[in-house]
Amino acid sequence: MEQAHSFFSFPYCSIPLDSAIEILLAHSAGPQGSSGVSLLEALSRIAGKDLHARIDLPPFDNSPLDGFALRHSDSAGASKEKPVLLRVVETIYAGDLPRKALSRGECARVMTGAPLPPGATCVIPFEDTDNQPHTVGLFHPLEAHQNYRFHGEDVRQGQGILRQGERISGAHLGLLAAQGFTEVPVFARPQVGILSTGTELMSGPEPLSPGKIYDSNRYLLAARVAALGAQPFCSPKIPDDPALIAQALEELLKTCHCVITTGGVSVGAHDYMPQAGSYIGAQPLFRQVQMKPGGWVTALYKDAVIILCLSGNPGAAAMSFDLLAGPLIRHLAGAAVVRPPQLLGVLQDPFSKTSPQNRFLYARQEGRDVFLPRTGFGSGLLSSLIGCNCIVHIPAGSPALHPGDTVELIPLSA
Amino acid sequence: MEQAHSFFSFPYCSIPLDSAIEILLAHSAGPQGSSGVSLLEALSRIAGKDLHARIDLPPFDNSPLDGFALRHSDSAGASKEKPVLLRVVETIYAGDLPRKALSRGECARVMTGAPLPPGATCVIPFEDTDNQPHTVGLFHPLEAHQNYRFHGEDVRQGQGILRQGERISGAHLGLLAAQGFTEVPVFARPQVGILSTGTELMSGPEPLSPGKIYDSNRYLLAARVAALGAQPFCSPKIPDDPALIAQALEELLKTCHCVITTGGVSVGAHDYMPQAGSYIGAQPLFRQVQMKPGGWVTALYKDAVIILCLSGNPGAAAMSFDLLAGPLIRHLAGAAVVRPPQLLGVLQDPFSKTSPQNRFLYARQEGRDVFLPRTGFGSGLLSSLIGCNCIVHIPAGSPALHPGDTVELIPLSA
Repeated sequence: MEQAHSFFSFPYCSIPLDSAIEILLAHSAGPQGSSGVSLLEALSRIAGKDLHARIDLPPFDNSPLDGFALRHSDSAGASKEKPVLLRVVETIYAGDLPRKALSRGECARVMTGAPLPPGATCVIPFEDTDNQPHTVGLFHPLEAHQNYRFHGEDVRQGQGILRQGERISGAHLGLLAAQGFTEVPVFARPQVGILSTGTELMSGPEPLSPGKIYDSNRYLLAARVAALGAQPFCSPKIPDDPALIAQALEELLKTCHCVITTGGVSVGAHDYMPQAGSYIGAQPLFRQVQMKPGGWVTALYKDAVIILCLSGNPGAAAMSFDLLAGPLIRHLAGAAVVRPPQLLGVLQDPFSKTSPQNRFLYARQEGRDVFLPRTGFGSGLLSSLIGCNCIVHIPAGSPALHPGDTVELIPLSA
Repeated sequence: MEQAHSFFSFPYCSIPLDSAIEILLAHSAGPQGSSGVSLLEALSRIAGKDLHARIDLPPFDNSPLDGFALRHSDSAGASKEKPVLLRVVETIYAGDLPRKALSRGECARVMTGAPLPPGATCVIPFEDTDNQPHTVGLFHPLEAHQNYRFHGEDVRQGQGILRQGERISGAHLGLLAAQGFTEVPVFARPQVGILSTGTELMSGPEPLSPGKIYDSNRYLLAARVAALGAQPFCSPKIPDDPALIAQALEELLKTCHCVITTGGVSVGAHDYMPQAGSYIGAQPLFRQVQMKPGGWVTALYKDAVIILCLSGNPGAAAMSFDLLAGPLIRHLAGAAVVRPPQLLGVLQDPFSKTSPQNRFLYARQEGRDVFLPRTGFGSGLLSSLIGCNCIVHIPAGSPALHPGDTVELIPLSA
């Protein structure tokens, strides 16, 4: 191995968050192939291809309500005192076809969704007429195309209805079904390996030994992987031993499209993650990112797979996951938009610290309002993450913040 | 059947939305039993019981960083010119136990997460010292409990960590794992029957016949049912025939905890849903709700199961689903909060119509900002639902709205 690539000589310089994301995306393979799945299976998956409308929606001019279809010119001059009388020539139900065109003085009884007969230019609801069986009285004039639903007014044949890389929603499913689609091409879900490291880690239900803690990061991160639409694959936890960590990484690299680890990334004597990366011949991409918390992040690269090594502190691990692994996993999943948008919200709580560096806080957005956790912000605190649905970004150099201040926020995947 | 309960005599009076929700909740059985599932299976499920912390978190006083644990009193008066020298008596890794208490003039090298030795009252990071192996120099004084993580500062033993009826998030999973839990009690997912009615309905891949449309509501609604954490169960579509509809309802009532239908609820000649309800001896609860769109909603009740009959227009069906079926299904799922919150947002688009009655619009919230669909608001429009993640509520009697206006909004389940 070249000395230039050794972890021991790899500089600890901290790179900007945007550069770190760019490096991850530049080294990541992108989505695997796409395949067709049934409509309901496609929910929340990433579209593998562009789809275009096969037909106009609605497919034909139709009535938006229960009433009488007529030629609007026939209603000219109608009033309470001088009703216009029209002859009802047929009744058209939804699913029917009109049997005849409307001539002057004629109308058709039409139900919601029924095709409009040739000649009809508007529809009047039953309740605005005297609703008689054979001859119906109108009491006011109608305009051309009043209560008239045009074919293609919702969707035009050939129009794009699903873009490759879009996350498929229930509304998409409705639209695809309305077009007669029964299958949707979706990208394969990336498999994301998760490895918790640390001699201090135990797992329930074993009783906790003194000096040990239960591993929580594996679940915190697996849930986030799942929320991004990827498949979490959890390795057994590994003590602080670079050879054992290297072995676990090799195992995960066999099947995973990216690997997320926690623990062992800082400057402690047992922070073995960079060394384990060196054992397996992985290329270091960066070791520190200009963000707080979660700035200690080691990115390794081997066999076209990124190994992103996060802090062992749950809050720090979650933050670097959301800001760095999130874009990477969205990219692997084929999402067209991989970076979360930066939106604006109105802070409802004070934040008394100044922010000499780029700072991120978990928070709860409710409408335009943004609330900070009441339990504080230590990077070891798990309880403060409960209920949070966004991240507030406080740019480097910001002063303390006050209720009413406008803040940048990044929504979290549900 | 009593005449008073006949659908033909049932008054068409329109009831307020809140009353309609109250009627649905009062007639609904609530959640089925709860059972334990593994942590990862519990993601997004509704907690079936309150859970309390088994242990303090962290379980012991520990170091939040890599550094030296010391007695802060020893650091008094330290400066660049007059460093305080401390003897390093041991190294404590995460997962270790301290072997000795600190005496005056002593310190211990500690890694992040390592238990602090008795006597230690603060921690100084390596990089703030000369970091020598045996005798370490301090250049500034420290305060008591500087860089000191107390046992229980995140969670206290006995404290509530999950409330019955809460939706279980990734943060909950992390917290439960950190407490040694391996299983979580969750409520059973309610089964929700979905029935599309209408002689006009076809399904892909059959080619579309003139006058017919493809059924989209089934998918639109099934996706919403799934987003609420319930299990959609779709019946085959049924033409406008009250006897066939009645038969399909009876079938769904055998296994479903509630049933959602679309089509046949208005005043058209083939609006057979109330009649089908009468055939099966269901009790009518209401027929119209003061909201637009989606005001035509028939609620039926049989064998402790609610049948909620929505419009056949996709936009209207979606709106009554979100505002009425949403609270009902959340209640059946055991959610503690069943009514969506009314939040505030800042409208970015004009809405030129006045709203003589309670009006609801699908919209897209991005941070504090709320955008209206560019494609208009017809209740038959499917394309306008794409990308919407909230509902704007415009109270009855509101004038036209302008960009910058504060509006009430209801977030949609993801």
